[in-house]
Amino acid sequence: MRNGGCLIDVGVGPGDPGLVTLNAIAALQKADVVAHFAKAGNASNARTIAACHFKDGVEELALLYPVTTEIPKTDAAYREAIRDFYDGAATAIASHLEDGKTVAVIAEGDPLFYSSYMHLHVRLAARYPTEIVAGVTGMSGCWSAVGTPIAQGDDVFTVLPGTLPEYELERRLADSDAAVVMKIGRHLAKVRRALERAGRLDRAIYVERGTMTNAAVIPLADKLDTAAPYFAMVLVPGWEGRR
Amino acid sequence: MRNGGCLIDVGVGPGDPGLVTLNAIAALQKADVVAHFAKAGNASNARTIAACHFKDGVEELALLYPVTTEIPKTDAAYREAIRDFYDGAATAIASHLEDGKTVAVIAEGDPLFYSSYMHLHVRLAARYPTEIVAGVTGMSGCWSAVGTPIAQGDDVFTVLPGTLPEYELERRLADSDAAVVMKIGRHLAKVRRALERAGRLDRAIYVERGTMTNAAVIPLADKLDTAAPYFAMVLVPGWEGRR
Repeated sequence: MRNGGCLIDVGVGPGDPGLVTLNAIAALQKADVVAHFAKAGNASNARTIAACHFKDGVEELALLYPVTTEIPKTDAAYREAIRDFYDGAATAIASHLEDGKTVAVIAEGDPLFYSSYMHLHVRLAARYPTEIVAGVTGMSGCWSAVGTPIAQGDDVFTVLPGTLPEYELERRLADSDAAVVMKIGRHLAKVRRALERAGRLDRAIYVERGTMTNAAVIPLADKLDTAAPYFAMVLVPGWEGRR
Repeated sequence: MRNGGCLIDVGVGPGDPGLVTLNAIAALQKADVVAHFAKAGNASNARTIAACHFKDGVEELALLYPVTTEIPKTDAAYREAIRDFYDGAATAIASHLEDGKTVAVIAEGDPLFYSSYMHLHVRLAARYPTEIVAGVTGMSGCWSAVGTPIAQGDDVFTVLPGTLPEYELERRLADSDAAVVMKIGRHLAKVRRALERAGRLDRAIYVERGTMTNAAVIPLADKLDTAAPYFAMVLVPGWEGRR
């Protein structure tokens, strides 16, 4: 074990600064370096949530995604650009760890659940002492904001990316008691059709900016097929007032 | 809106007292009454996690499950006993709310995700002002304790109760990229067989008492089919070091 350097992956929760945990605050108060992901030109959401807990004089490391929105995900150039980006980010963090510094990487939600952080984890965790601070997920933030029980008892609960083909969404929605569809963005119309065909549209709830002060919550049936943000979610509660 | 009484459902996280959120602490510091579920004769886990945040002189309301372990869940007597229990618990809480008191019901994990709390929610939320404080789920606590990324990108992630029939477990495990099987208890041998037939046993991890100091983490393939606690979980990570 090396002298000093420790990597801490800190989940800072879904957006409400009050959903940060005591362990996350303790980690940030001892971190010499705080790293955060953001799109170039945008503020990091995780930083906005947690910056009030950074210690004085902390060094910040902004990990800026390469601009790749024009390139399809299946494209070799996209894959290579992303791989290079994560390699570079891991190298930058490793250099601080080699200097014996404590580095916190902050992640919205939970760091090991659909988070960019895990690309760093697989590059660094075997080489440096690593701690994980679990966080409240974005989906928990959403169903709590809506106040709807999502799953109970022997329910089967499924998380589906909106990027799946329509027939896959339909099949899996019809086969689950409860579900969350993530990454809605430009997939909204397709997700709605799949829910309708699966017989679940009447209970589906569209949520934008879950625990933020400007949250939007509407029955999906009432949501127009206009633009939806990438991080919008659809909740399909499995538990409807059974007592 | 009535004068005063407010119900707050407070998720206190998976077990580590450091995984309590700032909102949970704030709710507990203003609660006149704190209610918690426990089996008769056992301490409430949620209370153990969060009692240090109760305000001085708080009134506690222990909601003790009727002893029903001998009765099968499908039995009418069981259903009736449980319904009566939740009705009684809701009535006891309502009486405090009618007195204008703030009542916090504390729940391990997240209050709207497989939690007993939701039985109170459906009985009370329409009648009294209600707030929900999302919590870190037990499953997030487990995969963070193990340090294994669970799902990423376009993974389909499924939560399965160990109570499902073996063929249903097998079918759904084979059809998911990532999964968590909850409520292992006496279903351990069946869950292992289903994972083996689904081709997922080699990556399955058995976790007992996730974020507690006495946590047990073993590859499921190495776990004997001896007793497992009801709250033990099996994690099936979907994301295996793809970079």
